[in-house]
Amino acid sequence: MTGRVTVAGLGPGDDRLVTEEVRAAIAEATDIVGYIPYVARIAPRDGLSLHPSDNRVELDRANHALDLAGAGRRVVVVSSGDPGVFAMASAVFEALEARPDPDAHDIRVLPGITAMLAAAARLGAPLGHDFCAINLSDNLKPWEVIEKRLRLAAEAGFAMAFYNPRSRSRPHSFARVLDILRDGCGGETLISFARAVTTPEEELRTVTLAEAVPEMADMRTLVIVGNRDTRRIGRWVYTPRRAG
Amino acid sequence: MTGRVTVAGLGPGDDRLVTEEVRAAIAEATDIVGYIPYVARIAPRDGLSLHPSDNRVELDRANHALDLAGAGRRVVVVSSGDPGVFAMASAVFEALEARPDPDAHDIRVLPGITAMLAAAARLGAPLGHDFCAINLSDNLKPWEVIEKRLRLAAEAGFAMAFYNPRSRSRPHSFARVLDILRDGCGGETLISFARAVTTPEEELRTVTLAEAVPEMADMRTLVIVGNRDTRRIGRWVYTPRRAG
Repeated sequence: MTGRVTVAGLGPGDDRLVTEEVRAAIAEATDIVGYIPYVARIAPRDGLSLHPSDNRVELDRANHALDLAGAGRRVVVVSSGDPGVFAMASAVFEALEARPDPDAHDIRVLPGITAMLAAAARLGAPLGHDFCAINLSDNLKPWEVIEKRLRLAAEAGFAMAFYNPRSRSRPHSFARVLDILRDGCGGETLISFARAVTTPEEELRTVTLAEAVPEMADMRTLVIVGNRDTRRIGRWVYTPRRAG
Repeated sequence: MTGRVTVAGLGPGDDRLVTEEVRAAIAEATDIVGYIPYVARIAPRDGLSLHPSDNRVELDRANHALDLAGAGRRVVVVSSGDPGVFAMASAVFEALEARPDPDAHDIRVLPGITAMLAAAARLGAPLGHDFCAINLSDNLKPWEVIEKRLRLAAEAGFAMAFYNPRSRSRPHSFARVLDILRDGCGGETLISFARAVTTPEEELRTVTLAEAVPEMADMRTLVIVGNRDTRRIGRWVYTPRRAG
């Protein structure tokens, strides 16, 4: 049996959002590699080794998975959401890049429901028109790049989805994000905070940018900002398909 | 039994990418409403009425679904991909907006694997950094808005996913898109054409913007343009998490 690395998305939390394709990959795996809370979602069974690891060691984790596969194991690297959106797929290819024969490795990526899509569905259809997705963490890019993208996204009239809006190491940056957005989009634009979507702790809240304060987001929050046409209709938030 | 409208995403084509949540909604439905090829994906059974309709009648379809639910039916409006990304969710809320008591309707939106995520997974991880999603059809917005967004997205350094890149009614517009991208991103930037992803007709092709020609896309193609750091590694295309 040749080893393989499958990079799989577990979706935002609710197990009914895991695809059958991902379930099948987990059922056939010998090893599960991933960040501690995502590995905790996998049911233990005989013949399955769980390898949970801490946050911010994505490259080590990717190399571990490639090494296990090189030794003949069927490894599933689990991400929350979709592995290709601010998650493990890119780290696996980064690890692969440093190896002599990339195509000698058997790798596949299985998509999942990323938090942005789950949050949008719970809110209504705030991403119903052109939109962008920005990771607000400055771990891997300069803060100036984030500010520039926010300004250009506002000018473009994109709805926006933000991953990692706040962390303990950046207590003030999200306040700055809100200032840039108020300036670029106008204070009446709607902003939604979707915390722990599809889990028992889910909380949804929509306010205007003028009303928004940084404390409305935490590490488990996906933030969606509408465009100028985004509106409330009853308890829902939606962005019309039409724009002029 | 009170009626309900469930707007559900069937994913890009492979039935193993349909979530359990969506399967359960379809199993409980009395009526399926949607564009002909998507309704064709639903297995007929006793007690289930199928209501296929033509393209470009999204609002009529949404009203039909609300009317059926008002008569006590359990309606599932099916979209390909995710219903919130250039699909039926926004049309349902648009129809709802014209009705007197929006919150009197029982509506829910169930996310799905949108084509962009499925295409990215098959290609590697081209959306591994900040990105945007643009519908290149000018049915519902002026062409000038599309051009402006392309220019700003290039300036922002977003990777980009394009839905509806070409149609018979716009034979020349995608050539114009490629010109704008070559100008804004540089000819060495990678562009991937993912046709009919996860179906038996799937075709994947990656070239540089300098090499790209409009005929590489058709109505079934999802196009992904990388950022300046997007690269090939073996048969894969990926965008590093880090940017400077």
